[in-house]
Amino acid sequence: MKAITLTAGGLHFHPSHDGPTAAAGETLVHVLKAGICETDLQLARGYMGFSGIPGHEFVGIAQSGDMAGQRVVGEINCSCRSCETCRAGRPTHCPNRTVIGIDRHDGAFAESVAVPQQNLHSIPDHVSDDQAVFVEPLAAAFQILEQISIQSSDRIAILGDGRLGYLSAQVLSQVSDQVTVFGKHGVKLLRFGHRGITTVQIPSSDPHELPAKSFDIVVDCSGSTTGLPMALHMVRPRGTVVMKTTVGGNHQLALSAVVIDEIKIVGSRCGPFEKAIQSLASGNINVDGLITDRFTLDRYGEAFQAADNANSFKVVFEIG
Amino acid sequence: MKAITLTAGGLHFHPSHDGPTAAAGETLVHVLKAGICETDLQLARGYMGFSGIPGHEFVGIAQSGDMAGQRVVGEINCSCRSCETCRAGRPTHCPNRTVIGIDRHDGAFAESVAVPQQNLHSIPDHVSDDQAVFVEPLAAAFQILEQISIQSSDRIAILGDGRLGYLSAQVLSQVSDQVTVFGKHGVKLLRFGHRGITTVQIPSSDPHELPAKSFDIVVDCSGSTTGLPMALHMVRPRGTVVMKTTVGGNHQLALSAVVIDEIKIVGSRCGPFEKAIQSLASGNINVDGLITDRFTLDRYGEAFQAADNANSFKVVFEIG
Repeated sequence: MKAITLTAGGLHFHPSHDGPTAAAGETLVHVLKAGICETDLQLARGYMGFSGIPGHEFVGIAQSGDMAGQRVVGEINCSCRSCETCRAGRPTHCPNRTVIGIDRHDGAFAESVAVPQQNLHSIPDHVSDDQAVFVEPLAAAFQILEQISIQSSDRIAILGDGRLGYLSAQVLSQVSDQVTVFGKHGVKLLRFGHRGITTVQIPSSDPHELPAKSFDIVVDCSGSTTGLPMALHMVRPRGTVVMKTTVGGNHQLALSAVVIDEIKIVGSRCGPFEKAIQSLASGNINVDGLITDRFTLDRYGEAFQAADNANSFKVVFEIG
Repeated sequence: MKAITLTAGGLHFHPSHDGPTAAAGETLVHVLKAGICETDLQLARGYMGFSGIPGHEFVGIAQSGDMAGQRVVGEINCSCRSCETCRAGRPTHCPNRTVIGIDRHDGAFAESVAVPQQNLHSIPDHVSDDQAVFVEPLAAAFQILEQISIQSSDRIAILGDGRLGYLSAQVLSQVSDQVTVFGKHGVKLLRFGHRGITTVQIPSSDPHELPAKSFDIVVDCSGSTTGLPMALHMVRPRGTVVMKTTVGGNHQLALSAVVIDEIKIVGSRCGPFEKAIQSLASGNINVDGLITDRFTLDRYGEAFQAADNANSFKVVFEIG
């Protein structure tokens, strides 16, 4: 099969890579489309030392099992379902897990990917492939609602005008009428404006150019180590900072304000797929027009470059 | 009056300093005893740039108002009670506040201190002066219970074998039967053992010598920037780290684990005085024998040195 691999030497395209083997409980999925996300860019730079086929945002057709022939998306954490953590109801944190396209499990930048059957979710007919490829990052945005309670009067700031910022802004706008997105890219911020979301273009990552202690909740989707110092500057005493950005390397931070202002910081990662699928099916969340670039797998170099380009929004591999 | 002042030039003793003036709504308190805490040591090193009379843990006798003649302790945040933050029920975070002995308000290392009347709490007769001097730091330990919900089965680690660690360990032992204190000082850890609290002596601040992802809740009372990296190493996925340590300067931290493991970090500062007083009155919390050193104000040099010494526990000025 066609596939992209990542090794210490970088990304490579293989016109005839071995197909994946379905382990016990796994189903092969024929991949239709797969999106490139910030984590893929980080992996390509060496984050987590991943080696294998990347790709974890995908829609495809199940090849076997109960869902054979159906369009599906797949949760990315492959958990053991038997350890203490899984039994305590936290399977996405299973210490024995592999993660599709991220950690010791080949991913979806290929014509076929092996997915645990219990990870699969069926996609309703009226949700398009282009929409379905957003289920994984959209679920990550919905995870914020699982972790913190939000009042409609809460003033919410989102840092970052990229993909996750956009999905988070739409999700949070459903529960608060005071969502403001702070970003550096005028072109990207326009997309938020079209959805009625307030935006502020900022010239730099200097926290002191931003309003101090002014938001009940600040969500860091900046994709940069500069996000957290900005968030800590903007959140009010006893407010909450949601960290959505996974960045390798060290943060350099003054943290005494966290104690003095009794700030809560909440790390947030993968979320509920069913809520994401329902929101797309009902039209509550709109992802139309977000895909700016489409590539075949052999054009991986251009694709990753586009995904890292401020003028692009979502870059997708057209595979099946 | 006798008083200790702190300026950029350091600490000084004044045998006849001007007494404080009670502003509207304030009461003068004749100070009996005042304790030196970690924050005082930090202030003496230049933290917060405080200039004036330090001291914020005290017991004294009210000189006027409703409580005239009574033994009292005083909350340290002097809030305006009229701003948006105060009206929202967060007076300890009032942006207009001064803080006794810490921020633009003379403190209790003196024979007299001015305290807003609404900050005063009466001390029951059978609570001794030696006990009452612990109300302020004990309230800070009780604040943890105000901020996070704890199950009796929760595995709790406390980092730090000092004063705040000791009070926090006693408070948390009332709600969990699995509290373990990690500290470097064998002599200090003995005190915890005498109260039936499990202790582990650690040779260094290297997180990798500590159990990984093993605690539901980790409370950092280390008083050092090395505490948070240790806490993040020890907390389980979706667990909670409570930051009790205010340290000036920058932390150097790898924070991707906060997102990947969806850890919650909660800053925690001042707490409920009435709960602290009640716990001392009922005997639920025992602070007997914690005062290892007593000094008069003129011996401030020895007193601050003792408070910074690993063989001391609580150092108190005997004033009135």
